[in-house]
Amino acid sequence: MIELVGFDADDTLWHSEGYFQDAHAEFERIVGTYVDLAEAGLHERLLATEQRNIMLFGYGAKGMTLSMIETAIALTTARISASDIHRLVELGKSILTHPVELIEGIRAAVEAAAARWPLVLITKGDLFHQEAKVRQSGMADLFQRIEIVSEKDAGTYARVLRECAVEGGRFAMVGNSLRSDIAPVLAAGGFGVHMPYRVTWRHELQAEVATDHPRLATVTSALEIADALEELARRSAAVAAAA
Amino acid sequence: MIELVGFDADDTLWHSEGYFQDAHAEFERIVGTYVDLAEAGLHERLLATEQRNIMLFGYGAKGMTLSMIETAIALTTARISASDIHRLVELGKSILTHPVELIEGIRAAVEAAAARWPLVLITKGDLFHQEAKVRQSGMADLFQRIEIVSEKDAGTYARVLRECAVEGGRFAMVGNSLRSDIAPVLAAGGFGVHMPYRVTWRHELQAEVATDHPRLATVTSALEIADALEELARRSAAVAAAA
Repeated sequence: MIELVGFDADDTLWHSEGYFQDAHAEFERIVGTYVDLAEAGLHERLLATEQRNIMLFGYGAKGMTLSMIETAIALTTARISASDIHRLVELGKSILTHPVELIEGIRAAVEAAAARWPLVLITKGDLFHQEAKVRQSGMADLFQRIEIVSEKDAGTYARVLRECAVEGGRFAMVGNSLRSDIAPVLAAGGFGVHMPYRVTWRHELQAEVATDHPRLATVTSALEIADALEELARRSAAVAAAA
Repeated sequence: MIELVGFDADDTLWHSEGYFQDAHAEFERIVGTYVDLAEAGLHERLLATEQRNIMLFGYGAKGMTLSMIETAIALTTARISASDIHRLVELGKSILTHPVELIEGIRAAVEAAAARWPLVLITKGDLFHQEAKVRQSGMADLFQRIEIVSEKDAGTYARVLRECAVEGGRFAMVGNSLRSDIAPVLAAGGFGVHMPYRVTWRHELQAEVATDHPRLATVTSALEIADALEELARRSAAVAAAA
């Protein structure tokens, strides 16, 4: 009774958050030459600036770079040098140009799913950067549709499912973020395969999902995705038979 | 025989390029306090930096802001102050937050077209910013689909038309850019309504389109779009009847 399977991209198909965290660490080293980081509350102020700017910039490396520049100027009371600001621009560029490194076992998992269901890739972030990564991943052909969206919320999933002519209860989503990949899909009656990544962006942490939800499976690696989808498909069929 | 009409957004539905040009002018004033602009070849160097960065950043205000920052640091040999760099960040934000100001007569033109054909909005640029402008324009409901794309080339139009199940020869596109809105559509056998904007971004200037192309109409204001589409529809029907 599952008719469509969605995959998240960043930290589900390929590594991503680690590059952002490396850039953050380098950012702290640069600003740390001007101010006492602990005293300045750097982490909190960057997060606060980012959250404010996400309303304006959306997600992605370009917005993060502009937020780093703003925060660095504010924290150093404009004492930071133009050369160091240029290093921040280069940090942003390094995120945009890092090679796409697939998550271990994910290609086989996506191929197995593609043999059984039509697949849609649903990722949020910067259109240009996401397209480049999809291209470089070599997996674009496994997906019937590729949806790069600004936010993964109830409205976004509803639109994608409507355009695919699939009901919410016949859709399963695989991803690393409870907030973006799992919670809205479960709320719409669908199924979720949660594959936590080793690090999670703080913005993605807020989500309320019961870990024993009957339509949720949690896997520890991509090698378990195929079995998890099969198990959810069985549960889905059981629900349909009972109805 | 026209089955689908596409509209461009920036400088077709609403004013856009003027805001970018205002930001450029302010950028020049800021950098001009450090260097002799004419001597430094500022225009050319900003354009060169932008063209290089578009490969990495894509189109839009965030990429332009990062390009301005890079160019300013390079031109001033890193003498520019952090406060002035912050002014460049604020310039970028001002582009992202300016109110959406519709082109005169465009709402009536889009409504008239929507009464006759299904419409698709096809715009390139920053996903987040374009979505915000579509929302603010109040015209989203007039379009059956909204496509925010990274580049408007032959491949993009082919994908959109395939997903809409419309042949290239049965599609008409309305827009201000010969390069992005008109040339690829004419090349695919479709129809174009060119409505030049008072200023054109230099990146959009390169295009080879014969102004007397039989499937092209040129209008001087949105008030003429409805008639131009009717005329193209007549020509389209004549072509179909002759075939």
